[in-house]
Amino acid sequence: MGFATNEKLRAMITGKNLIGYSLSGKSNKIFTGQGGSVKEINVVFHEADAEEIHQAVTKANAAFNIYRHFSSERKIAFLENIALKLAASKDSIIKITAQETLLSLNRLEGEMQRTINQVKLFANLLKEGSWVNAIIDTANPDRLPLPKPDIRQMQIAIGVVGVFGASNFPFAFSVAGGDTVSALAASCTVVYKAHPGHPATSELVGNIIIDAAKETEMPEGIFSLLQSASHESGINLVEHPLIKAIAFTGSFAGGKALYNAASKRDEPIPVYAEMGSINPVFILPEIIAQNSSALADKLAASNTLSAGQFCTNPGVIISLESKKTDEFLSHFASDITNASAECMLTDKIWKGYYTGIEKLSAMADVEIMTSNLKEEKENVAVPYMFKTPASVFLQNDELLEEVFGPSSVHVIAGNKNDLFAIAEKLQGQLTVSVWGTDNDLTNYHDLLKILELKAGRIICNGVPTGVEVTHAMVHGGPYPATTDSRTTSVGTNAIYRFTRAVCYQSYPQNLLPGALQNENPLKILRKVNGEFTRESIS
Amino acid sequence: MGFATNEKLRAMITGKNLIGYSLSGKSNKIFTGQGGSVKEINVVFHEADAEEIHQAVTKANAAFNIYRHFSSERKIAFLENIALKLAASKDSIIKITAQETLLSLNRLEGEMQRTINQVKLFANLLKEGSWVNAIIDTANPDRLPLPKPDIRQMQIAIGVVGVFGASNFPFAFSVAGGDTVSALAASCTVVYKAHPGHPATSELVGNIIIDAAKETEMPEGIFSLLQSASHESGINLVEHPLIKAIAFTGSFAGGKALYNAASKRDEPIPVYAEMGSINPVFILPEIIAQNSSALADKLAASNTLSAGQFCTNPGVIISLESKKTDEFLSHFASDITNASAECMLTDKIWKGYYTGIEKLSAMADVEIMTSNLKEEKENVAVPYMFKTPASVFLQNDELLEEVFGPSSVHVIAGNKNDLFAIAEKLQGQLTVSVWGTDNDLTNYHDLLKILELKAGRIICNGVPTGVEVTHAMVHGGPYPATTDSRTTSVGTNAIYRFTRAVCYQSYPQNLLPGALQNENPLKILRKVNGEFTRESIS
Repeated sequence: MGFATNEKLRAMITGKNLIGYSLSGKSNKIFTGQGGSVKEINVVFHEADAEEIHQAVTKANAAFNIYRHFSSERKIAFLENIALKLAASKDSIIKITAQETLLSLNRLEGEMQRTINQVKLFANLLKEGSWVNAIIDTANPDRLPLPKPDIRQMQIAIGVVGVFGASNFPFAFSVAGGDTVSALAASCTVVYKAHPGHPATSELVGNIIIDAAKETEMPEGIFSLLQSASHESGINLVEHPLIKAIAFTGSFAGGKALYNAASKRDEPIPVYAEMGSINPVFILPEIIAQNSSALADKLAASNTLSAGQFCTNPGVIISLESKKTDEFLSHFASDITNASAECMLTDKIWKGYYTGIEKLSAMADVEIMTSNLKEEKENVAVPYMFKTPASVFLQNDELLEEVFGPSSVHVIAGNKNDLFAIAEKLQGQLTVSVWGTDNDLTNYHDLLKILELKAGRIICNGVPTGVEVTHAMVHGGPYPATTDSRTTSVGTNAIYRFTRAVCYQSYPQNLLPGALQNENPLKILRKVNGEFTRESIS
Repeated sequence: MGFATNEKLRAMITGKNLIGYSLSGKSNKIFTGQGGSVKEINVVFHEADAEEIHQAVTKANAAFNIYRHFSSERKIAFLENIALKLAASKDSIIKITAQETLLSLNRLEGEMQRTINQVKLFANLLKEGSWVNAIIDTANPDRLPLPKPDIRQMQIAIGVVGVFGASNFPFAFSVAGGDTVSALAASCTVVYKAHPGHPATSELVGNIIIDAAKETEMPEGIFSLLQSASHESGINLVEHPLIKAIAFTGSFAGGKALYNAASKRDEPIPVYAEMGSINPVFILPEIIAQNSSALADKLAASNTLSAGQFCTNPGVIISLESKKTDEFLSHFASDITNASAECMLTDKIWKGYYTGIEKLSAMADVEIMTSNLKEEKENVAVPYMFKTPASVFLQNDELLEEVFGPSSVHVIAGNKNDLFAIAEKLQGQLTVSVWGTDNDLTNYHDLLKILELKAGRIICNGVPTGVEVTHAMVHGGPYPATTDSRTTSVGTNAIYRFTRAVCYQSYPQNLLPGALQNENPLKILRKVNGEFTRESIS
């Protein structure tokens, strides 16, 4: 899979920043992609400098004041055009992405399709239209002691959004991923900071958004793409006064640095950082007795999938001490020993994985369970598995930290009280999973009640990897899983990260947005004087 | 209006903290109320110390884990009991509040009724039930390449909320005010820090909540009240690890200090600080030509109401240079000169008002418009009025700062461009008002479009004072009006400050909350597979 087949596409990769509709590479600070076979791609990328960041944000702000007044139809046409162009180019892009990320073609095809579906989901949300949460309380001039004014509320866009792409999802959480698309659907404009793990893919997908914007006559600046391998430019973007919100998917250190910078601004802004978690899995006694080997197969497969490089990777698995738990552990050990060791996304991620493994290996009373380790090769993540008693987990906060990769810590609880103590000790998580028979789940309902306070998503008898892109999804959770537990970065409700409510008091009908006019021209669901209705107001 | 008529009530004021169902006054640090005729009340209040704060929060957290599982019916009964007890005691409480705040009985009666209505509004929101935003996406086991799991989302409470009472609304934004009641409605528990301007009122209303809690068998700790006249105890409350959100109404300095403390915690938490604003009023040319004196009467009345001590007080009034504007100004000047000068809430607020007035008076090219100033008395706020050209306003950021009290700055725009430049320069506001004829508003539609980005509420031909407690109200706005523009502190949507979405994946029906069960036992509106419906799921 060389570049021979992709010469045309490769020639499109300039290594420059996409500032509105212009290419720009002013900085002498250049870098090559951090991931995969970067030598084959043979392009240097220009780090966005402060001036380019300012240009991108300024253009985005000017575009915002045009774009936000466009009809939904025009915004839908833009989003659908992005989806169409992604579909038309996906086969060739995926080949380059595979070189950059070393992810399998199969995985990348699935992720690209998910990304296209995600764009369409937001286009459909705009078509239906009720997402603006129109709330109308009509006037009552006869009320005493004072007349009641007419008040009408809806969600409006907040302005320019800075989006930071993730390393591990080059499509779904990157350039045309959920953050960008939910912000555009909200009528915000986007300045996107590409992840240095896949800058070539980023430029190609960025060009697709820009081509779609041109074709559907969007204002220049609606989308810009900055290349960067430094923390500095990211902080510069957060600190720009015209940026009104930040979306980020990545490490705790990265997300927290952006949060800190944003909260110190003259005007603090929201940061939606999804920073991963250990995604604890509780296995209850009856199910492990019935099913230990099938359960081990499912969880080991989830743990080692794509070299464990998922925010929802099950990193801590908790079960009660028993003979069946021993069987589960040995089966899990055999599964991960036989799993093919895969390359990681970047050198930095690979080194981070082994730093985590060394830390766990060095801990007292944390036992390595996998003895037949394969010979280790550069960039290859060999799956690891550790075991520790509940008492050690409860006393050692380092075991609450994520090790990004195919690693798992198995915590053995002596009794039911241990399970509850572990649940209480957990920090905020993206997911918590509980495996149990109907009896188990009923017997441990109080455990579930503790766990629902700890996570954005709580799963019965399922693996945490695999995040449905749908209305009901919550991909979020209490800190430190995210910096804003009230939001989700996946699913249609992701749009509300980029809007706020405004209310119009005693406005003339003709100046109200369509969503709030008496005749309900958009036929959306509204809350009128406390009742949900699609009717017009007489 | 002495205490003779209120001996019984007065005897109930212990000056202690209400920690769950216990009285506590451990600290030697004592204070007397900062407002009104505190000598008559003759009670010293015990500053809550670190241990008492810890006790209150710990009790609140234990109560949270019980209360949140109660049925809506039980929560409604608790809220309705608060409303009933407020109504039963209001006449006697108001007499003491009038002594503490020097607000008129008439005003306090109106505010108390509003507070009672507000409690009932949240009880009714729980009765209707749809506020939990239930979203259900059912499973599809046949989907390829992978089966689609069942995913169900709803809002759940986040935990213990710290509420800081306001000085200027001893009922509606204080102990049983919108913050406390929306938090309790959300199933959170509350630790309330009383404002030192009305500690006696606070204890009386706090006891009403506690009596209602006991009578409806709520868990001890559901509500605690801390007395404090120091910043230190407020920061201690924000920094307690079991506190999950803060609600505050008050000054910019106060709100920002809490925001900073919260964002530096090990686990940052949301701070909903409503910090006031200058509430600009734009007067368009046709309406001022038609109606300058009536307009002056309305705005002057709004500006001087209750000594101007409203977050929504119109502090900056912008109009176009004209003969009619001169008439408006002289009429406004005469109105405020004839307005009765009222006492302010506290000595600190009164001194703050005159500091602001002195600052404005000393500014170059800012002209004092009211010459016949009444003799100034301690604690009395004489209304002031200033005039300045647009050019000075545009160059001087100090004119963007709120002067809390009956002060107004009249900005004279030379032309339409000035109006637009002023609109662009504005920071975030709770409200912006625009007065205009139909022609005016249509001609200046682009101005309205700028202004809606600056405020939580935008009003046509109305005064900003008077905040309806209703579904559509937004009492909030971009920073620095608040620290979280996505929320409101008035109206039913205030509840969402204290909730977050959680999703349940592949949960057994019997363990799902009622709101998410197939048969829809609560008969609420839900979004099922993308469609809004009250139907059950077959």
